[in-house]
Amino acid sequence: VFDPALSPDAFPRVAAVVGLGMIGGSFALRLRECGARVIGVDIDGAVVSAAQERGAIDAGSTDLDAVGTADLVIVATSLEHVARVAGDAARRMRRGALLTDVGSVKAPIVTAVTAALPAGVQFVGGHPMAGNERQGIAAADAALLDGRAFVLTPTAATPAATVETMEAVIARVGMRPIVLDPVQHDELVAQVSHLPYLLSVALSRAIADDARAIGGPTMLEMTRVARSPTAMWAEICRTNRAAILRALVQFEHELGRLRRNLEEGALVP
Amino acid sequence: VFDPALSPDAFPRVAAVVGLGMIGGSFALRLRECGARVIGVDIDGAVVSAAQERGAIDAGSTDLDAVGTADLVIVATSLEHVARVAGDAARRMRRGALLTDVGSVKAPIVTAVTAALPAGVQFVGGHPMAGNERQGIAAADAALLDGRAFVLTPTAATPAATVETMEAVIARVGMRPIVLDPVQHDELVAQVSHLPYLLSVALSRAIADDARAIGGPTMLEMTRVARSPTAMWAEICRTNRAAILRALVQFEHELGRLRRNLEEGALVP
Repeated sequence: VFDPALSPDAFPRVAAVVGLGMIGGSFALRLRECGARVIGVDIDGAVVSAAQERGAIDAGSTDLDAVGTADLVIVATSLEHVARVAGDAARRMRRGALLTDVGSVKAPIVTAVTAALPAGVQFVGGHPMAGNERQGIAAADAALLDGRAFVLTPTAATPAATVETMEAVIARVGMRPIVLDPVQHDELVAQVSHLPYLLSVALSRAIADDARAIGGPTMLEMTRVARSPTAMWAEICRTNRAAILRALVQFEHELGRLRRNLEEGALVP
Repeated sequence: VFDPALSPDAFPRVAAVVGLGMIGGSFALRLRECGARVIGVDIDGAVVSAAQERGAIDAGSTDLDAVGTADLVIVATSLEHVARVAGDAARRMRRGALLTDVGSVKAPIVTAVTAALPAGVQFVGGHPMAGNERQGIAAADAALLDGRAFVLTPTAATPAATVETMEAVIARVGMRPIVLDPVQHDELVAQVSHLPYLLSVALSRAIADDARAIGGPTMLEMTRVARSPTAMWAEICRTNRAAILRALVQFEHELGRLRRNLEEGALVP
């Protein structure tokens, strides 16, 4: 469990979170708990106001220029916009500041942002393995981060000190830093997140309406992620299609073995 | 949430639970909270002692004769033994007492127990849609029952008053009674429970070891049921094979559609 007293590190003194949805809002809340001054940016002024009312941010704006004073900028927009917004943010950041993002698919984002990065700003792609089926600032909750993995995807060109600073920030917000190559991240996350989403959707559709009423904890937990925002998952599927299809082949191989056991009356599934 | 003050019904004054595992133990705990005297029976004397130490039962025995004073007998042994133990219990029950069970597959149990039922004892098959991946009396927890469905599977020959009494007992222990034909139950439970188990096992096997470390809440919840006791699931698969295969066909149809969408680059999964 997160304990700010165990994380007295001074970085970041000022953090900016761009995109105040469930994940961005959760990081904003947690960074404030850590003692950072948090600037929130969202294209929707009503969301900025809601984040202020929730106490998630110290100051807010709909103008990306607001990231200019931050030591650390976290881009938490929808996946579709992450690379562009991160590039736009980088050009407004002060020299020496650190940039990360929370996009669910890393290789294309890391390639695009690295290419757009101005001198003096360091970028390490990130993916917090946290969240639930809800969305928006109302669903933000710092506890969502507790103990979850935060994958960092530096490239060969990323300075080791930058990665170390990011690892310290991640530990400070109560998460577990894990460093992976961006392409390897996309392969593994297809297995633990994107494939499970497809299974959850297919299962939800395979369950007849009259069966749903008797469903117990197993049904509820295995169909939960299928209720998360479709647009987000459509973008993830588009962006990580090849890796998801590879994970699906492996799953179908395993399910096929179980099916044959069942057809042949084998007792152990 | 269960509130015994809202359930002042006097039935059962004496309940017997045969098989003091996670589910049997949870019913024993809850029935005691309701004010019933609870007799626990298990073939393993150490389990009976553990149930007494946990405060789950008022009296315990390894001898099935102990059910003779009960108004209500709940057979909660492993699926493999439910029908035989329920028949053995029925012959030891007093006239007018009520018998139910918690087996996960109902048609074969209902057929077998009904055929073995002595005059004067009423039987209604049951299936509480509750539990988790653990097992044994140490995992018993009355809260597992709260708000969950309890499917009752009477036959055409079951008196309406017997079903009504069972429905009242189920509501009293904090669960939702749902009445289904035994065959229909087996068809629906294949969709909401048995198929999800197979998917959870196949997914667990499809996830590479190095992917597991980055898994978030979705992976954890979708692989949880795969960690439940294999022997129990092997017996369920054996007993409800045809219905599970039908549910699997429906699932594969839905997953196939998602796969084709993905291959064709459709944005919405």
